[in-house]
Amino acid sequence: MSTGSFKVVKGSKKTKARIGELKTAHGMIETPVFMPVGSKAAVKTLTPHEVKEIGFSAILSNTYHLYLRPGHEVIEKLGGLHKFMGWDGMILTDSGGYQVFSLSKIFDVTDDGIDFASHIDGSRHFLTPEDVVDIQAALGSDIAMVLDECPPYPAEKEHIRLMMNRTLNWAKRSKTRFHGLNHETGGEMILFGIVQGGMHKDLRKESAVKTVDIGFPGYGIGGLSVGEPRELMLEMLEETLQHIPDDAPRYLMGVGDPEGIAGAVRLGVDMFDSAMPTRIARNGTVFVKGGRLNILNSAFTLDERPLDEDCDCYTCANFSRAYLRHIYATRETLALRLLTWHNLYFVRSLIESAKKEIRES
Amino acid sequence: MSTGSFKVVKGSKKTKARIGELKTAHGMIETPVFMPVGSKAAVKTLTPHEVKEIGFSAILSNTYHLYLRPGHEVIEKLGGLHKFMGWDGMILTDSGGYQVFSLSKIFDVTDDGIDFASHIDGSRHFLTPEDVVDIQAALGSDIAMVLDECPPYPAEKEHIRLMMNRTLNWAKRSKTRFHGLNHETGGEMILFGIVQGGMHKDLRKESAVKTVDIGFPGYGIGGLSVGEPRELMLEMLEETLQHIPDDAPRYLMGVGDPEGIAGAVRLGVDMFDSAMPTRIARNGTVFVKGGRLNILNSAFTLDERPLDEDCDCYTCANFSRAYLRHIYATRETLALRLLTWHNLYFVRSLIESAKKEIRES
Repeated sequence: MSTGSFKVVKGSKKTKARIGELKTAHGMIETPVFMPVGSKAAVKTLTPHEVKEIGFSAILSNTYHLYLRPGHEVIEKLGGLHKFMGWDGMILTDSGGYQVFSLSKIFDVTDDGIDFASHIDGSRHFLTPEDVVDIQAALGSDIAMVLDECPPYPAEKEHIRLMMNRTLNWAKRSKTRFHGLNHETGGEMILFGIVQGGMHKDLRKESAVKTVDIGFPGYGIGGLSVGEPRELMLEMLEETLQHIPDDAPRYLMGVGDPEGIAGAVRLGVDMFDSAMPTRIARNGTVFVKGGRLNILNSAFTLDERPLDEDCDCYTCANFSRAYLRHIYATRETLALRLLTWHNLYFVRSLIESAKKEIRES
Repeated sequence: MSTGSFKVVKGSKKTKARIGELKTAHGMIETPVFMPVGSKAAVKTLTPHEVKEIGFSAILSNTYHLYLRPGHEVIEKLGGLHKFMGWDGMILTDSGGYQVFSLSKIFDVTDDGIDFASHIDGSRHFLTPEDVVDIQAALGSDIAMVLDECPPYPAEKEHIRLMMNRTLNWAKRSKTRFHGLNHETGGEMILFGIVQGGMHKDLRKESAVKTVDIGFPGYGIGGLSVGEPRELMLEMLEETLQHIPDDAPRYLMGVGDPEGIAGAVRLGVDMFDSAMPTRIARNGTVFVKGGRLNILNSAFTLDERPLDEDCDCYTCANFSRAYLRHIYATRETLALRLLTWHNLYFVRSLIESAKKEIRES
């Protein structure tokens, strides 16, 4: 199998869920897979060894952040992102488009590319779809994403169509650049296309069909989980997935809540990423069976139980709610680590349960 | 051997340094020993397993902080500090006096005790020397310290004498209370006296002689490393140590800089604690052979070397200066962990080298 090859190993008999294998330059990735987010070359609060210990084989890192700091040339000179951050698993890099739109206060999108001001120091930058492929190659990404334009929610349909068409055009240019590059570098990197189309079934279909026409070894589904109700998200997702071939990995970008992941796996999604599990942990919120709890709740002052009595993560095996509440309230960094560990372990367990269900169906 | 027993196992032939063994309810502690500080029941940024992995057998925790949050009764109800924080090694608790003087903006010391306002919420509290013994017993401390009054530097000699006499008086009261308590609890806790006396040899001598007259299984040397030059610190330390029996452990409170530890070990000090190695790590400063370096130095942007090429700590084994600089600059929590790990490992290695030197002398 060459890098980018994907094979469905087992399909569920009850739903569209499936177990697959995706070959990358840093290992065979079993899907469904959740990729913790290491925006700036670190999964927040954790070492790469811990991320692996929790059970993850792949992470996502942010092109936008690394382009600005320390700079992709710096990382390239230091031997690439894997070596730089000490992670030998798979790395998917996003294209950076989403971060420009969400972090930069000043940006201007033209057919040619994106002009934006750094959210850190206001410096001006201009990136084309080709630049974004080059940057991801310099980082040494295993899976690169094409530059796309993600519409806000809600948005005018004509605006969404314009953005969709621009994304399609950029996808073609990205693929051309990627082929030139891969010819030089030996073809270790994989490039995924991205389907947009907002909350309109016809646009979702058009975007999916045309992106598949361009042809990629895998497809990101973008522009979902941007504020819309979960039902609408799942409806758009289902429409989109109908038009992506079964033998390609489908990556639902930015979805990380347990219910969202569970629902999407049943519809046939193979890959996920989200900063949410780690972000809410740092805000004191943890996943537990059937919901969430906030560690600052005064009911936990004398609570000797672990966060989740069914969880066997490091945090739950060693620390009580009372202790976690105390160190969170007193702003100990250790609290952020322990809650992050638990939330990521929870998501990993959810994925494992989903796989078990598929195997046993 | 009963708890509190101390035995000098090997004395240096070249200096007054010695290797000793101190029996505590949580293990035999080999001295010289450095105790990392876990003020609020957590060594900053690290898990208890990591503190042990780095090589530490004992930590210090702060009575003042734990009395205020979550409260010693809470910790007692939850089974004591060891269970609460997941640390099965030795715990020494300070008396809290020093924190009152350094953190509380409003306090009033009388012969009876200390009246102070919490630095957190301004609530008023009054603690006697007896209370402080009780609180440490409730925490389940292995080694408790008597309440003492630490003079500022510089201070008037008559003021220092007054504080010294008050500390002596409090030491007697603490010992009396401790004996009553230990009778109830089975005698697992150890109580150390504290020598004060500012930067005056005659007061240091008087304080030491009179504290030893009261009689404790170990002696803290307080009021040093409070801003005075290192030479003066070592001079006062030497004077003090002359009047403490050789067969008792000597604990130099609040000293944690490598040069200070090395000098004090040679004078016969057995125990150390300091928040400095962990605090400066969080400020981006790390110990290296022959000095310190600040991780933000732009010279490290492309520096592939570890922090210290002779160090084999987790951080140095896995990460480059370039990476550490990047994650420190981008405010990743992981940077604080990795720098803290290195600094504590450095101090632990220093202690190990000192022991080796004593053994081979």
